[in-house]
Amino acid sequence: MALHTGRHFLQIPGPTNIPDRVLRAMDRSALDHRGPEFAEFGFAVFSGMQRIFRTKQPVIIFPSSGTGAWEAAIVNTLSPGDKVLLAETGQFAVLWKGIAEKFKLDLEFLPTDWRRGADVAEIEARLASDKLHQIKAVLVIHNETSTGCVTHPLEVRKALNRTNHPALLMVDTISGLASMEYEHDAWGIDISVGGSQKGMMLPPGLSFNAVSEKALAISKANTSLRSYWDWHDMLEFNKIGTFPYTPAINLLFALREAIAMLEEEGLENVFARHKRHAAATRAAAKVWGLELVCLDPNAYSPSLTAVMTPEGHDADAFRKVVLDNFDMSLGTGLGKLKGRAFRIGHIGHFNDLMLMGTLAGVEMGLDLAKVPHRAGGVLAAMDILKNRDVVAMPKAAVA
Amino acid sequence: MALHTGRHFLQIPGPTNIPDRVLRAMDRSALDHRGPEFAEFGFAVFSGMQRIFRTKQPVIIFPSSGTGAWEAAIVNTLSPGDKVLLAETGQFAVLWKGIAEKFKLDLEFLPTDWRRGADVAEIEARLASDKLHQIKAVLVIHNETSTGCVTHPLEVRKALNRTNHPALLMVDTISGLASMEYEHDAWGIDISVGGSQKGMMLPPGLSFNAVSEKALAISKANTSLRSYWDWHDMLEFNKIGTFPYTPAINLLFALREAIAMLEEEGLENVFARHKRHAAATRAAAKVWGLELVCLDPNAYSPSLTAVMTPEGHDADAFRKVVLDNFDMSLGTGLGKLKGRAFRIGHIGHFNDLMLMGTLAGVEMGLDLAKVPHRAGGVLAAMDILKNRDVVAMPKAAVA
Amino acid sequence: MALHTGRHFLQIPGPTNIPDRVLRAMDRSALDHRGPEFAEFGFAVFSGMQRIFRTKQPVIIFPSSGTGAWEAAIVNTLSPGDKVLLAETGQFAVLWKGIAEKFKLDLEFLPTDWRRGADVAEIEARLASDKLHQIKAVLVIHNETSTGCVTHPLEVRKALNRTNHPALLMVDTISGLASMEYEHDAWGIDISVGGSQKGMMLPPGLSFNAVSEKALAISKANTSLRSYWDWHDMLEFNKIGTFPYTPAINLLFALREAIAMLEEEGLENVFARHKRHAAATRAAAKVWGLELVCLDPNAYSPSLTAVMTPEGHDADAFRKVVLDNFDMSLGTGLGKLKGRAFRIGHIGHFNDLMLMGTLAGVEMGLDLAKVPHRAGGVLAAMDILKNRDVVAMPKAAVA
Amino acid sequence: MALHTGRHFLQIPGPTNIPDRVLRAMDRSALDHRGPEFAEFGFAVFSGMQRIFRTKQPVIIFPSSGTGAWEAAIVNTLSPGDKVLLAETGQFAVLWKGIAEKFKLDLEFLPTDWRRGADVAEIEARLASDKLHQIKAVLVIHNETSTGCVTHPLEVRKALNRTNHPALLMVDTISGLASMEYEHDAWGIDISVGGSQKGMMLPPGLSFNAVSEKALAISKANTSLRSYWDWHDMLEFNKIGTFPYTPAINLLFALREAIAMLEEEGLENVFARHKRHAAATRAAAKVWGLELVCLDPNAYSPSLTAVMTPEGHDADAFRKVVLDNFDMSLGTGLGKLKGRAFRIGHIGHFNDLMLMGTLAGVEMGLDLAKVPHRAGGVLAAMDILKNRDVVAMPKAAVA
Repeated sequence: MALHTGRHFLQIPGPTNIPDRVLRAMDRSALDHRGPEFAEFGFAVFSGMQRIFRTKQPVIIFPSSGTGAWEAAIVNTLSPGDKVLLAETGQFAVLWKGIAEKFKLDLEFLPTDWRRGADVAEIEARLASDKLHQIKAVLVIHNETSTGCVTHPLEVRKALNRTNHPALLMVDTISGLASMEYEHDAWGIDISVGGSQKGMMLPPGLSFNAVSEKALAISKANTSLRSYWDWHDMLEFNKIGTFPYTPAINLLFALREAIAMLEEEGLENVFARHKRHAAATRAAAKVWGLELVCLDPNAYSPSLTAVMTPEGHDADAFRKVVLDNFDMSLGTGLGKLKGRAFRIGHIGHFNDLMLMGTLAGVEMGLDLAKVPHRAGGVLAAMDILKNRDVVAMPKAAVA
Repeated sequence: MALHTGRHFLQIPGPTNIPDRVLRAMDRSALDHRGPEFAEFGFAVFSGMQRIFRTKQPVIIFPSSGTGAWEAAIVNTLSPGDKVLLAETGQFAVLWKGIAEKFKLDLEFLPTDWRRGADVAEIEARLASDKLHQIKAVLVIHNETSTGCVTHPLEVRKALNRTNHPALLMVDTISGLASMEYEHDAWGIDISVGGSQKGMMLPPGLSFNAVSEKALAISKANTSLRSYWDWHDMLEFNKIGTFPYTPAINLLFALREAIAMLEEEGLENVFARHKRHAAATRAAAKVWGLELVCLDPNAYSPSLTAVMTPEGHDADAFRKVVLDNFDMSLGTGLGKLKGRAFRIGHIGHFNDLMLMGTLAGVEMGLDLAKVPHRAGGVLAAMDILKNRDVVAMPKAAVA
Repeated sequence: MALHTGRHFLQIPGPTNIPDRVLRAMDRSALDHRGPEFAEFGFAVFSGMQRIFRTKQPVIIFPSSGTGAWEAAIVNTLSPGDKVLLAETGQFAVLWKGIAEKFKLDLEFLPTDWRRGADVAEIEARLASDKLHQIKAVLVIHNETSTGCVTHPLEVRKALNRTNHPALLMVDTISGLASMEYEHDAWGIDISVGGSQKGMMLPPGLSFNAVSEKALAISKANTSLRSYWDWHDMLEFNKIGTFPYTPAINLLFALREAIAMLEEEGLENVFARHKRHAAATRAAAKVWGLELVCLDPNAYSPSLTAVMTPEGHDADAFRKVVLDNFDMSLGTGLGKLKGRAFRIGHIGHFNDLMLMGTLAGVEMGLDLAKVPHRAGGVLAAMDILKNRDVVAMPKAAVA
Repeated sequence: MALHTGRHFLQIPGPTNIPDRVLRAMDRSALDHRGPEFAEFGFAVFSGMQRIFRTKQPVIIFPSSGTGAWEAAIVNTLSPGDKVLLAETGQFAVLWKGIAEKFKLDLEFLPTDWRRGADVAEIEARLASDKLHQIKAVLVIHNETSTGCVTHPLEVRKALNRTNHPALLMVDTISGLASMEYEHDAWGIDISVGGSQKGMMLPPGLSFNAVSEKALAISKANTSLRSYWDWHDMLEFNKIGTFPYTPAINLLFALREAIAMLEEEGLENVFARHKRHAAATRAAAKVWGLELVCLDPNAYSPSLTAVMTPEGHDADAFRKVVLDNFDMSLGTGLGKLKGRAFRIGHIGHFNDLMLMGTLAGVEMGLDLAKVPHRAGGVLAAMDILKNRDVVAMPKAAVA
């Protein structure tokens, strides 16, 4: 691997920087997942994840990447031919569409320009016109990691309610969970999909489904073939604090520690911190004169900021300059943003000075890569960060 | 967790003891799995796993537990209604049967008494009588972890060849890989199924499919619904050293280190070591006067030894005595062996003195739990271990 | 380094096996030892060490090996020409004599045959005859690591009291502390000397002086040249929770964790555990027919057992066989015991099954090295370990 | 400890940030320091330290903090009453004076204003006038950690040579070693004093003496009392790859790894990197309008920058604001600079973006603490960092 000194700046929007405490928690021998100690440990992570998802319903933990949790949502509740609705908010929407199609769902893809969240009014209109309730599920990407645009799940819930539509509300909050407000119960989500390597500050390898009673009931009747992803096998074993097959024990040790860290900081402080960092990043981009991918201020993501490079300036060439000169990984433009945008992750285990190192690296990289821009973005970011009134300072940081 | 000093003896047959080197390799930040450094790393683990499976064919690595790799084998090559053959060698056969049935396969379950490997003659007879080649796959459990009985995959391959039967040969070597001889190519295996937490000395969370050309060809034509487990998506990305979705990066770091350790010792030495330890364990059991679960010497497992407790003596009560008094986890009896047998894992990162600690713990536990036995099993084990002629000493240990 | 699998058995009587918890505690960045967080941490380790030494007096922590703490005891309280008394209990007595002589002390060396503790009656006689109180200090080695013989400091205190002798009582408890009873205050010790790498379960690099009021008063008047080892500089800074020069911060992190582990187990349980293990080891040696170095049952060490090899059998050749074949390090014979004895450490982070692995390794090694012995020592050890009545079982182990 | 997220910025000029590789190297069990494996390891660290000090002479490694290595230099070669020369370049000079006085040396303290290196002309004049060669040693602080001013040891060597003065040249390069050029042999140094927790990127707890033949010869004749610090005992054991007393084994593991890292980067690149970072830091300070402590451009330290706060603005109040708001530790003003200056460490395991986070934290802190300054220091620093021509880019960073 390339030879650099000091600490690598891993500023892709996931996998994110992993705290030493979490790494150390993982750095130990496994224990007998059928032994008497395990149940207590199992219950602790289950209830911890319920608090993170803000739910009293079960949270199922799969040894898999986040993609697996989407597949689980589908195979537990939907069947080939089922109609589902999904807004094409970006590359991750395209990927979920791919999965849905592999399971022969009849997915209606509502287009966007990839520069905003889903059009909830359009979703509502489609629901209203679906008098026969053929739409079985509305799929929402809470935080579209390819664009840095948020769709607010509660707005979609309201649309479902206003239209009295019984479709399941499925929300992918893989890059949203633990970095921005999320309320599985209060927002009436049926299936939440999460992953370990974003706001949860863990290595990749765990995924989550929080499931409503309605989703559980539907899954019981659903005949789609499944085994690994089957919720009911899981819940049967989870009841006694364990799993139907060997769980990813060391990642669960890490999860317990990460939950503790999030709760020590306080989830509200975590969310406020992400917002401050996003605001500072946007302030820098504004000075640089670079356009954000996200055009809707209501949809700005707290966890990452995607930035367009000017016409004729390849974003990946810029990223390579930054990586080679400053040992910082930025996120690439995905799908149709390939070469046209780069993404700055400010998610997870992060603080003001890490952000300033990040933004300084971007600004110096713009210069070295000869991307036209105005200098001083970092100063604008500092104005945000040092102004403790603009956004409430997390209590943690002044303790 | 219970308060003990010193190191816990984790002598279940998996998850196994994890070497410090492997834990330390995992204890680091993730890296950008879409960055330029990743491909070199990806290729290193792919080729390493080919050497472990002894194959020139691709080895697919899933972020999942071993169960996932079985599901992958099924959904890539089989369809509902397909006839498959599986010997009921123990509890893991029962579990695979459960998975097969969830995918609506027509599984023919060849009974055994759970005290030997599969009856290859019976398999051959079934294949010979299947003139229409309705049997699409023969499923073999290389090392039945619930009984400590081995079925030799090459014997099954020979039966397929003798009967000119085109069925796929699928082998679960989850608790066999890297602890006993395994030759994916030379033995004509179509699909090998492996996991990380046994002989590979890793935490649970990775699973493997080594796949023959024939299996790949069949999977291309197979219409079973799948996404996460789809081999072709994987292979497409593996070609460029990466993965279609975020891999379990830290476990892959661990995997690279574990492969290095296995190759430093030498796979042949690894296998010889497991055989010596199994022989020593059986010698102890013989003195104790306790029956082995496995009645066929040709099927004795090098990686674990399952031992019956005498009528009227609950194996789990004995295991609890051992855990409470000596901080050692032994494997429970599974399925119909529940309460009647316990299992001693001598697999993975292990050596002579760790084995002697283990066997002494069993012998003292038998006494404390008042299980009738003769003393001196440990002496018989020592006779095996110190006799360097009986089984060739691994070169590593005299270097 | 030699290639072995599994965990090395480090059964020298120090450095001892380090618990993972302690290693993980050390595996983190330093912190500003002049910053506001440091004092709280500093006070925690100071008070922790007071509880370990069982004293209300200050415990000074040096960044040095244990040898440094002996030098500190000398240069703070003694001056060239001062008469001191020390029994030649073994090689460590010889080493302390060497240090004393380098500082021009007039050391009177009371001979023993290296097979027992100090002759307290002889010490008392010397004190009684020293009417002019020319003897300034009596030096005692609590646990002579080269022979496995204990001298009980309280007996020496009683001798001092009976003779009304004002000499300082200095005790080296480097390999005694945290593995056998020790009472700095109740036993009237003036200076206790400790180290990190024995019963404290830490890496080497920290040493300790617990100091009585009398010792402090004497040191104030003492004109011996010193800086690094000066108690008063230390105490000045310790008062505000820090140190006069940069302390070995990461070892202090480790120390805090080790203190926590000892107190979770309970010091009494720690001591009982060491006694059980020593008793089991002696039982094994008795069956082997090998003589212990220590001839006095009242002086048997709980933390190590030194064993003689028969005439004509080189102990180091035996140790090499054990290391080469079983990856276990045993302690060498030191000084005049070179080649004639080996030492089994059963100190620190240790348990019954680790001991059984150790003793099995010794017994197999005796056989391979053709050292005449009777087989079955391990069975005798197991009889001790499994008999919960002989020595009270530590509560920790039955919880 | 205070609750912050993300990684603490430990920007005191030592202890410095410790690389994960070094921490992981330390995070393992000890090994038998009298066993056969140890010598190879011992020789590796001895020869590594010779390469770091650029010497063919022995380098002695003490288990102690850096202070111990100064004491060792004194007690091995000097005696009470010996005249020595030392420039009062700052607080560390004051501390060394304190040690010298404790050993009754007759130290002549050449005053400075604490804002430059030693006045070599004055040293030369003193040497020239010392016709009787009463001065036994000239003590030089290579990098005065309290002021960020360098004294070039080669200049002092030249002065000694020009005056044909036989005094020993002793150099404290504790915060210089491995962060700026150092040539023990080529510069004619007699005794070099180093420590682990600065440019060597280790935790505190190891110290070093590199010693010339002349120093060794003098030490043989020197009668000062010593034991722990005695070079000849050390060298006797070092010859066979080990130590006279238990070394700080885990810190030695860390040392081996740190040497490897420094040599992978290349010492010249390491030095160039420190110079770039110092230049960038000074550029920022210039914009802020804050005075450097160091007034002589030839004496600017590559490893730290000490900055004055304006009259009436307490530097420690500022540091507290930075710590509370941005979780960054800056170095306090020492001695007579207390409250008047703060110190920015840019030494050891560090890179451009970590520096930018650091400088942004300083600039924001100045604002929050209402210390008068001009904004934009960070931009000036970026101009230095991104200009690859001003100072040659370390090869490592463009590989």
